[in-house]
Amino acid sequence: MNYRFSFYLLGWLLVFGGAFLGVPLAAAILFHEPVLPFVGTIVLAGMAGGIMVWKLKPVSRRIHPRDGFLVVGGAWVLISCVGALPYLFSGSLGVVDAIFESISGITTTGSTVISDITVLPRALVLWRAMSQWLGGMGIILFTIAILPLLGIGGMQLFKAEVPGPVADKLQPRLANTARSLWGIYVGLTALEWVLLKLAGLSGYEALCHAFTTLATGGFSTRNTSVGEFGSPLVEWIIVFFMLCAGINFVLHYKVLLGRGREVLKDAELRYFFTVVGGATLLFTVVVHEPGMKFWDSLRLAAFQTVSLLTTTGYVTTDFEMWPTLALMAVVVLLVLGGMSGSTGGGIKSLRTLLAMRSLRITLHRLIHPHAVRPVKYGGVVVEESVLSGIWAFLTAYMLLALIGAFVVAAHGYDVVTSLTSSLTAIGNVGPGLGQIGAYDNFSHFPALVKLVLAALMLFGRLEIFTLLAMLTREFWRR
Amino acid sequence: MNYRFSFYLLGWLLVFGGAFLGVPLAAAILFHEPVLPFVGTIVLAGMAGGIMVWKLKPVSRRIHPRDGFLVVGGAWVLISCVGALPYLFSGSLGVVDAIFESISGITTTGSTVISDITVLPRALVLWRAMSQWLGGMGIILFTIAILPLLGIGGMQLFKAEVPGPVADKLQPRLANTARSLWGIYVGLTALEWVLLKLAGLSGYEALCHAFTTLATGGFSTRNTSVGEFGSPLVEWIIVFFMLCAGINFVLHYKVLLGRGREVLKDAELRYFFTVVGGATLLFTVVVHEPGMKFWDSLRLAAFQTVSLLTTTGYVTTDFEMWPTLALMAVVVLLVLGGMSGSTGGGIKSLRTLLAMRSLRITLHRLIHPHAVRPVKYGGVVVEESVLSGIWAFLTAYMLLALIGAFVVAAHGYDVVTSLTSSLTAIGNVGPGLGQIGAYDNFSHFPALVKLVLAALMLFGRLEIFTLLAMLTREFWRR
Repeated sequence: MNYRFSFYLLGWLLVFGGAFLGVPLAAAILFHEPVLPFVGTIVLAGMAGGIMVWKLKPVSRRIHPRDGFLVVGGAWVLISCVGALPYLFSGSLGVVDAIFESISGITTTGSTVISDITVLPRALVLWRAMSQWLGGMGIILFTIAILPLLGIGGMQLFKAEVPGPVADKLQPRLANTARSLWGIYVGLTALEWVLLKLAGLSGYEALCHAFTTLATGGFSTRNTSVGEFGSPLVEWIIVFFMLCAGINFVLHYKVLLGRGREVLKDAELRYFFTVVGGATLLFTVVVHEPGMKFWDSLRLAAFQTVSLLTTTGYVTTDFEMWPTLALMAVVVLLVLGGMSGSTGGGIKSLRTLLAMRSLRITLHRLIHPHAVRPVKYGGVVVEESVLSGIWAFLTAYMLLALIGAFVVAAHGYDVVTSLTSSLTAIGNVGPGLGQIGAYDNFSHFPALVKLVLAALMLFGRLEIFTLLAMLTREFWRR
Repeated sequence: MNYRFSFYLLGWLLVFGGAFLGVPLAAAILFHEPVLPFVGTIVLAGMAGGIMVWKLKPVSRRIHPRDGFLVVGGAWVLISCVGALPYLFSGSLGVVDAIFESISGITTTGSTVISDITVLPRALVLWRAMSQWLGGMGIILFTIAILPLLGIGGMQLFKAEVPGPVADKLQPRLANTARSLWGIYVGLTALEWVLLKLAGLSGYEALCHAFTTLATGGFSTRNTSVGEFGSPLVEWIIVFFMLCAGINFVLHYKVLLGRGREVLKDAELRYFFTVVGGATLLFTVVVHEPGMKFWDSLRLAAFQTVSLLTTTGYVTTDFEMWPTLALMAVVVLLVLGGMSGSTGGGIKSLRTLLAMRSLRITLHRLIHPHAVRPVKYGGVVVEESVLSGIWAFLTAYMLLALIGAFVVAAHGYDVVTSLTSSLTAIGNVGPGLGQIGAYDNFSHFPALVKLVLAALMLFGRLEIFTLLAMLTREFWRR
């Protein structure tokens, strides 16, 4: 392994991560709020990163798969630590809470330990939203450019899908991917910002929500989330951009290239929208009350469906009051998650789609034992190794969620709270059911539970195996 | 497909099934109870079966895999219908309840709709216990001799494991397997009967419990199950025989052949006992109260662990009063189930074991992308097709359980009741949590829920795919 180069890269990441804090710093100056939390963080991150870059000037730039895991895992952990400092330095949160809030941000989860967000300095709330946006930016690069190379959980399928020249070299590929897809990400964010402002939000609140929508993060500037604005227009705008964020960014890129017709044929996209349609229909029936306008029911239903499925986590209605059937649908949505290559979490549509196809092929093989019919995706045969990667992913995902739920349950919480807090963490969603429901927060959990849930967020965000691999003895063996 | 021969075989099954009702008929005569319910059933089954055998004299005896599915699926459905008649004819239960109780018996599940078992004729209660025993007998033949040939859910591994000559012809193989394994099954039942009688139970109650223990069925002659006897000795005897029933019967056979050392090395057996040990330890801590003897805590914990894991479903303690952590462990146990080749239900230890090994191999491959290391079991490489069969099984199992839970939830039941009633049905366990807890019964469910849960029992008992295959259009295509 090339530790030297890995830590050199992480050093640069610290320097850049620190630099991004210039934005909330500027906001603090503008709002006449304390600047020290941000200055302190920038100086610390810059110094630590600078020393690493200076001292670890790489001898060789060759990296192995294992270095890839180390850099990616290290990046999310390091940036989470840096991101926690402003909460800590401003005296707003204790150590565990600051780490939880920061990891919840960087992983675009959106669970919060803050009971009253309105008493926090506005620059800090901006940083909280921005941490999600940066996390979303990172995840696009990670899932589309790095994940296929690492061969995690069936995402090898993307190898041929990445825009730009398919080179064997990592660097030009990364640069190319980053340019195309980040352009779309930034563009959509800017567009939502403008539209939300036009719809009546302040520039500051519009920006915060644009940041957390595109990241499928879900942090809000209001205690009771997006519903507090009471604006149907704002809600529909956010539904649209949540959907954009939950769609594979490669598809957005193809639309820009004028290949829209090809995009409409995408099996994962069709499956994703089938789930959106089905759940919206169910929830529309559920939320509808006598005297309520159909469009209001539809809006509440569509908003909550898209918010949960894309793992954003905004709330406009107290879905905990829904009947059991709808609650179970809520849990299913927050497990399914967004499309592959999106900023959404969960197990991703592509995996459930391929699992279903594989199941159908298995049934076919039982009936015709001598027939050879492989699983296909987009007209191409999906290799067995890709499928087994997906199965292993699903198993590891469920196992980790179960372990998390056991930890929560061990602290005396009920079954529903235990299960959904674990699932919402690993799925990077935000809210759950029970004591972490639509309008609850995570502050009542003991420190250990907060740390375990934060760890689950990191595992989920990095597609489980990135961190799981690093927990094996084998990984560290020379 | 050879429909003619399939239905000819089912005709014989009806005749034999009817003949077995001679046992409760004899009991009815002995107990001076109404004989008509049994005479009526025997006559009906005999006539229907006789006509089928007579009219469908087979032209060809060649059968294809699809005929195998048809015969196995048809056998369980037909015998369930026949088994429901005595409840119906005696006026004890309505149509839906009779079908539910009968399917719960034949599938060795043990969920009941009978609120007070003591008011029923004793011959009928004996038939109820015996229906489980016959179901267990059927399942041993099915899992060990037929399943591997059908290639369902990874059980192809057994092909080489079946005692007797490994022939390509189905008939000698079936006869051989049946003789060896049914001998063990009958022997263990007789032994438990004698021991329970020696421990103080009446001959009748000892027989009923011996029947339902070896089948991992769990129907009791008492309303509050085995705990009502208040006899530690009886409980320990039953724990021992539940374990025997939850172990692969091929291993019992090997022990008889003097290959005990080989059996002790069996990976699935070791894994199975690791789960038993772990859960017993956890539950011992949970049930222990100040002033309670350690051996009493251990007995309660061991009994409930083994009862749930082997999917028997007897109860000696109200596990619903346990803390959340233990409740979640209860759910995990009733999903895991017994060993492959046992009469236990659930997903079977072999499948979870191989899934874990496959997961470890996936992690290994991520770290060493060019290394070739296959999943092994018993020193032999497990083919990818076997593994994908297991993954497909797990997915189908969970999907069906989820659909079942949705149906229950749609009728207004809470999340815990919905989930566990579905899981306990598909796992052929018996009790669940919530409104179907340790001392509850299933009588309060609406008819549709009862029928859906009964269907899940059949799906689970026949390893999902036997019935799932028959639901596809492909299956019925010429």
